[in-house]
Amino acid sequence: MSRFFSSKYKSLEAYTPGEQPRDMKYIKLNTNESPYPPSENVTRAVKAESERLNLYSDPESRDLTQVIADRYSVGYENVLMTNGSDEILNFAFMAFCDSQKGIAFPNISYGFYPVFAQLNGLPFKEIPLAEDFSINVEDYCNIGMNIVIANPNAPTGLALSLDDIEKIVASNPDSVVIIDEAYVDFGADSAVGLTKKYDNLLVTQTFSKSRSLAGARLGYCIGDEKLINDLNTIKYSTNPYNINRMTSAAGIAAIESDKYYMDNCKKIAETRAYTKSELERLGFTVLDSKSNFLFAKPDKIGGGEYYLTLKKMGILVRHFDKELIKDYVRITVGTPEQMKALIEATEKILGGN
Amino acid sequence: MSRFFSSKYKSLEAYTPGEQPRDMKYIKLNTNESPYPPSENVTRAVKAESERLNLYSDPESRDLTQVIADRYSVGYENVLMTNGSDEILNFAFMAFCDSQKGIAFPNISYGFYPVFAQLNGLPFKEIPLAEDFSINVEDYCNIGMNIVIANPNAPTGLALSLDDIEKIVASNPDSVVIIDEAYVDFGADSAVGLTKKYDNLLVTQTFSKSRSLAGARLGYCIGDEKLINDLNTIKYSTNPYNINRMTSAAGIAAIESDKYYMDNCKKIAETRAYTKSELERLGFTVLDSKSNFLFAKPDKIGGGEYYLTLKKMGILVRHFDKELIKDYVRITVGTPEQMKALIEATEKILGGN
Repeated sequence: MSRFFSSKYKSLEAYTPGEQPRDMKYIKLNTNESPYPPSENVTRAVKAESERLNLYSDPESRDLTQVIADRYSVGYENVLMTNGSDEILNFAFMAFCDSQKGIAFPNISYGFYPVFAQLNGLPFKEIPLAEDFSINVEDYCNIGMNIVIANPNAPTGLALSLDDIEKIVASNPDSVVIIDEAYVDFGADSAVGLTKKYDNLLVTQTFSKSRSLAGARLGYCIGDEKLINDLNTIKYSTNPYNINRMTSAAGIAAIESDKYYMDNCKKIAETRAYTKSELERLGFTVLDSKSNFLFAKPDKIGGGEYYLTLKKMGILVRHFDKELIKDYVRITVGTPEQMKALIEATEKILGGN
Repeated sequence: MSRFFSSKYKSLEAYTPGEQPRDMKYIKLNTNESPYPPSENVTRAVKAESERLNLYSDPESRDLTQVIADRYSVGYENVLMTNGSDEILNFAFMAFCDSQKGIAFPNISYGFYPVFAQLNGLPFKEIPLAEDFSINVEDYCNIGMNIVIANPNAPTGLALSLDDIEKIVASNPDSVVIIDEAYVDFGADSAVGLTKKYDNLLVTQTFSKSRSLAGARLGYCIGDEKLINDLNTIKYSTNPYNINRMTSAAGIAAIESDKYYMDNCKKIAETRAYTKSELERLGFTVLDSKSNFLFAKPDKIGGGEYYLTLKKMGILVRHFDKELIKDYVRITVGTPEQMKALIEATEKILGGN
C-alpha cells in the first residue's frame, strides 16, 4: 500500500478471480466458462471489425443494444450494455445505494457483492441461506434495503422460481432488486418479463457463460427506462467507450447464432445430469443445479483435499476457503469427455483412500 | 432520473463524448482518432484470439504488461493495463483522492477530469490557464493537492517541458501528480523516465491515438510499484477482467509493430505543420500543437459557426461551448487528403463571408 492510498480503502479486500496457472495444461473446470467455442460468425465479425480499430466504438452501442432489445422483447431504452456483468453490478451498487440505503444479499453467493459494497462504502447485510443452501424468500420480503440475488445462485446452482422473485420485488417497492442472471440460460426462469411490471427490478445477464464469450467481456442489464438512464449517467461518468468494437461485433454475431448457443446450453444440462449421477454414485452430495456448474461434497475427503488432489492430476475445480462451504467444490460442467476424465480421476482419488 | 438514484449524484454532469452522427458519411476530424488503420499483425492476432473467446482473459494481463514494461524500460511491477486510459484516470481519482485530499487541474483541459472529481465526491480546483492558453508552472508548485495535467494539454495541444513537469512533481512530494500523456507520441517529451525518481508520479498513456486502437480500448499507467498496487486493489474491486482477449492480443501485436506506428506519428506531425500553415494563411490563429490535433480560431467567423458550416459540408471537427474557448475549434490531424479537403472547405466558407 502506498502512503497516498485513500484511508477509505484501507480495509478493502478485493475480489479473487479463479486461478489461471500456467505451469501445465489443465482441464479447466474452475471458472464456469463454456467448453464450446464461439460460433463461426463471431470469428468472422471480429476479424472484419479489427480493420477499423483506429476509430472509436459507438459509446451508445446502438446496434448491439437494439439486438438485445429485440432478442428479449423489451424496448431499446430498457437495455444497457456493459463491459462484462461485473461492470453493471458495480454501476448499480453505485447508482442506487449510498450510506443511507444499503444492500442485502445471501451470505453464500457471488463473492463480488461484498466487495462492491465495501468499495462504495455501503452498509450491507449478508442473509444466511437455509441449511440446505436454499434462499428463504421471506427473509427478503419487506426489508427496505436494495437487494441483489444471483438466480441461479452461485456457487450453489440452486434457482428461485419466478413467483418467489416476484414476491421479493413486489414487497420492496421502494428499493431496487437486482436479479443477477449470469447462469439463467442453463435451466432457470428469467425475470426479464417482470421488468415491464415493476420499476424497481433490474435484471443483469452476461455473454460469458451461455454464449461462449467470457474472453470478450460483454454483459447487459434490462429494466425500467429510468433505472437505465441513471446507470447511463454513471457509465458516462466513468468509461463512456466501455465496449470496444470487437466485443460489440462479437455480441451481435452471437445473438444471430442464438440457436447454436441455446443448443449448447441443452448439451451442458445433459452433461450436468450425467456428472451429477456419476458423482452421487461415488458418494458425493450434489445440489440440484440449474447452472453450468455443480456444487458437490465428497463423502470421504474434505473439499480442499479433493480440489488439491484433482489439481495435481491436471484438473482444476474451484474450492472456497469459507467455513460454511469448505467441504464442497464447485465444478464447471465441461464437455462429456472432460467430465468423464473428472469422474475417472475422482474414482482414483477415492479408491486410493 | 429514477426515484432510486442516489442523491449524491443528483448534480453529476456526465462526460459528453464527441458526436458520432450516422446521417451521412463525414470526414471525421472530431475525436482525435488516427487516420491510419492498425498494422496487419494486429488483425491477424485478433482473429486468432477470437477462436478462444469462450475462455476468460488473464485478469493480470501478464503478457501484455511485460511487453509494455519492456517497451518503456520499466519493471513489470510498474505497469497497470486498463480498459482505455479513462479507466486508469478514474481508478487514480478513486485511489488517491478523497474528501480530505482534492485534486487540481487546468480550467481548460480534458473535460473528464471534473466529471471524475464530481463522481467521486472530491474537492477539486480548476486552475486558469494563462491568456495564451499555456500552463503556468508556478501555479502547480507546492499546492498540497493531487494534480492531473494532460501533456500535451487538450484541446490546446500545448506541451510542458520535462523540466517543468519535474518541478511540479518535486514540489508536491506528498501528493500524487498524474501526467496524462494520451498525445505524447506526436511531439512532447514523456515523463516515464521520471517515475523511477519520484514515487508520487503516475504517467498514463493510451493505444487510442498514436497506435490506432481507439476502438479496442487499451490504456496503461506507469509509476512506482506501490501506486500500481493500490490501483490494482481498485481494479480487482471493480472489474478484474477489464481487458478482453482480443484487445490484449491487439496491444501485444501493436507493440511488435512499433516502427509502423511511430512512423505514422511522424507523418501526422508533418500533416499538422502543413495544416497549421494553411490555416494561418487563411487568417486563423493556430496554437503550437505537439499533439494530433490543432486548436484554431478563424478570424472572420465564430468557432461555433465554423464548426456548423463544416458539418453541413461533411466535415466534423469539435467545438466546445465554453466561454473561454468558444471562438476556437479542435481539428484532428487526419491524412494529407483529408486536411486538403478541410482547407478547401474552409476557403469556401471564408470566401462566402
